[in-house]
Amino acid sequence: MSIRIGILGYGNLGRGIETNIKGNSDMELVAIFTRRNPEDLTIASNVPVVNIRDIEEWKDRIDVLILCGGSATDLPEQTPEFARMFNVIDSFDTHKNIPTHFDNVNKSALEGNKVALISCGWDPGAFSINRLYTECFLPNGNTYTFWGPGVSQGHSDAIRRIDGVKNAIQYTIPKDEALNEVRSGSNPNLTVRDKHKRVCYVALNENANEDEISEDISSMPNYFDEYDTEVNYVSEEELRQYHSKMPHGGFVIRSGNTGTNNENREIIEYSLKLDSNPEFTSSVILAYARAVYRMSQKGESGCKTVFDIAPSMLSQKSNEELLKIL
Amino acid sequence: MSIRIGILGYGNLGRGIETNIKGNSDMELVAIFTRRNPEDLTIASNVPVVNIRDIEEWKDRIDVLILCGGSATDLPEQTPEFARMFNVIDSFDTHKNIPTHFDNVNKSALEGNKVALISCGWDPGAFSINRLYTECFLPNGNTYTFWGPGVSQGHSDAIRRIDGVKNAIQYTIPKDEALNEVRSGSNPNLTVRDKHKRVCYVALNENANEDEISEDISSMPNYFDEYDTEVNYVSEEELRQYHSKMPHGGFVIRSGNTGTNNENREIIEYSLKLDSNPEFTSSVILAYARAVYRMSQKGESGCKTVFDIAPSMLSQKSNEELLKIL
Repeated sequence: MSIRIGILGYGNLGRGIETNIKGNSDMELVAIFTRRNPEDLTIASNVPVVNIRDIEEWKDRIDVLILCGGSATDLPEQTPEFARMFNVIDSFDTHKNIPTHFDNVNKSALEGNKVALISCGWDPGAFSINRLYTECFLPNGNTYTFWGPGVSQGHSDAIRRIDGVKNAIQYTIPKDEALNEVRSGSNPNLTVRDKHKRVCYVALNENANEDEISEDISSMPNYFDEYDTEVNYVSEEELRQYHSKMPHGGFVIRSGNTGTNNENREIIEYSLKLDSNPEFTSSVILAYARAVYRMSQKGESGCKTVFDIAPSMLSQKSNEELLKIL
Repeated sequence: MSIRIGILGYGNLGRGIETNIKGNSDMELVAIFTRRNPEDLTIASNVPVVNIRDIEEWKDRIDVLILCGGSATDLPEQTPEFARMFNVIDSFDTHKNIPTHFDNVNKSALEGNKVALISCGWDPGAFSINRLYTECFLPNGNTYTFWGPGVSQGHSDAIRRIDGVKNAIQYTIPKDEALNEVRSGSNPNLTVRDKHKRVCYVALNENANEDEISEDISSMPNYFDEYDTEVNYVSEEELRQYHSKMPHGGFVIRSGNTGTNNENREIIEYSLKLDSNPEFTSSVILAYARAVYRMSQKGESGCKTVFDIAPSMLSQKSNEELLKIL
C-alpha cells in the first residue's frame, strides 16, 4: 500500500510536493487542502481540493500531512493544531523560535498519538544534519555556513516594500575570498560583511529616484546595513525574463584538526547548487515523510527533528539492498 | 562516568584512536590490546598494553572495543569473535563482503547481547551516509564518487611487490574534467579511466630497469591497467621526505532533477580533504563509539551500520542544545 500524502497550502512548496512526489513510487498524493475557495484553485494533479475546514473528514485517509505554509504566522498555529489529528511535517525555519515550536508541536503530537517532524528542508534540514555530523566527526574545529548564490525571498520582499519600488529580486552571494580562506583550513574569523554580498535587481515606478532608493536599500537595518550591497536598476520586463527562477544553495564547511599537536587539517565541505529552492525543499520533505510514516507504524509519537532520524528510515531500499551500497 | 574505550591493534588506525580520543571529553581510553608481546610496544598514552589472550579479563571494564585490524584477514575473524564479549566497532571495508560480514557479526552480537557497528570510517562510512541521504533527497538522479587526491595503501603495496622496487607511494587523483562535468549536472557516463588517474613515486633497487618496471606497473590487472598511470622515479630519501604523509579525500556528488519535466538541476556535493586518512577515520569511529554505547545502554543488540544511527546519537549535546543549532 502506498503512503498517502496530503498537502496543506498550495504555494511554491505545495506545488513542489505535488510535482516531485512522482519520484517516490511508494507514495500517493490524495488531497490538497486550502484556506481559499477550492474552486478558485487550479492544480496540476488529479486529486480533490478540499477546504481546510473539512480536513477532519480526511483523518483516516491520510498517512502524512505536509504543511506548506509560512513560518511567520501559518506554521506556529497549524503544526500544533494538525499534529493532534495527522502525522505531519513542516519546514518551520525561524531558527530562534524552533525550541518553542518544538514544545508546542510535541505536546499536540503526544496527545494525538501522532508523529510530527518540524523544520525539514535544507536549512534547517540537510544543512543542519551536516553541521551536526561534521562537528561530531571533527570535534576540534569550526563550522562555517555560506548561503547562495540564490534568491532570498525575505530580502526581495523587504525591497518591494520601499516606496517607489515596483518589483525587486535580491541575490545573496557568498564571497569567494572568504570561501577559499575557509577551505584552506586557516579557521578565519569572518564578519557578516566578509562572508556574503547582496546583489539587487530593482524595477522602479516612474518618478522614483535611483540614488534615494539605493540609499534606502543599503542602509536598511538587519537586511542590508551590515553587507556590501549592489543595486542594479532594470525594467520590470527584464526582471520577469531573467530573474523569475528561484535558484539557491550554499555551503557548510567544517574545518577541523586532528593529531597529537593538532597538526593535521581535515576539511569537510557540503554544498548545494539548486535550480529550484522550493522543489529541492519539497523533495527533501518527501524523503522524511517516509520516515514519519514508518515511525508512526512502529507506534512512536511526539515531535521529532531530522537529527532523530536514522538515514535508513528515508530509503525505499531494503536493509539487504542498503548493505550492498554501504 | 566516561565511556570506556579499548583499542585492539596498534597500527595507524589504533594510534589515531589513541591520539584523537582527547577531542571527546566523555570518553576515556582504558587499554590497548595486541597480538604482539606487550613489552615490545611503545605507546603514546599512559594505559596498560595487554596481550589479546587476556582480553576476557577486561569484559566488564570496557564499554566499546574498537577493532583496528585489517579487512583482509583480521576483521572477518575478530569482529564476530569479540562481538560476543564486547560492544565493538570496526572499519571493515571490503565492500563486496559486507553482507557476509554483517551476518557473522550480527549472529555473535545477538548471542552476546552486545551492539556491533561495522564498516565505519569515511568510505564506507561518511561517504555511504551521503550517498544514501542524497539519493533519497533526489530520487531522480545519479551519484558519482571520486577518491583522492590521496595515497592508496593497496596500490602502493602492489607496486612494492614488484621485483626491483625498493619502495613506492601511489596517489589516486580525481580528474578535474570529470569532476566539472559532473558538477555541471550533465549526468555523464564516465569510465574508470575518465574519473581517476594514478600517479606513482617509485624508488628502485640499483640494477632495476625503469622502462620494465613502468610497464609492469601500468599493465597490472585491476590495480592499474584500466587507468592512465604516471610513474616517477625518485630516491628512497625523497620518498621518505616528501611522501610519508597519508593524505586522502574525495567527493560524493549527486546530480538530480526535479520539476514537472525534470527541468531543474539540483546538485549536492560532499567532499573531504584530509591531511591524515587514519586520523580522520579514527575520529569518525570515535563519534560512532558514543552511539554504540548509547544503543547498548538502551538494551539494543545485534549488528548495525552507519545507516541505522540517527545523527543525534553521535553528539555530546543535549536535545535542548541540538534544537538550538538545528
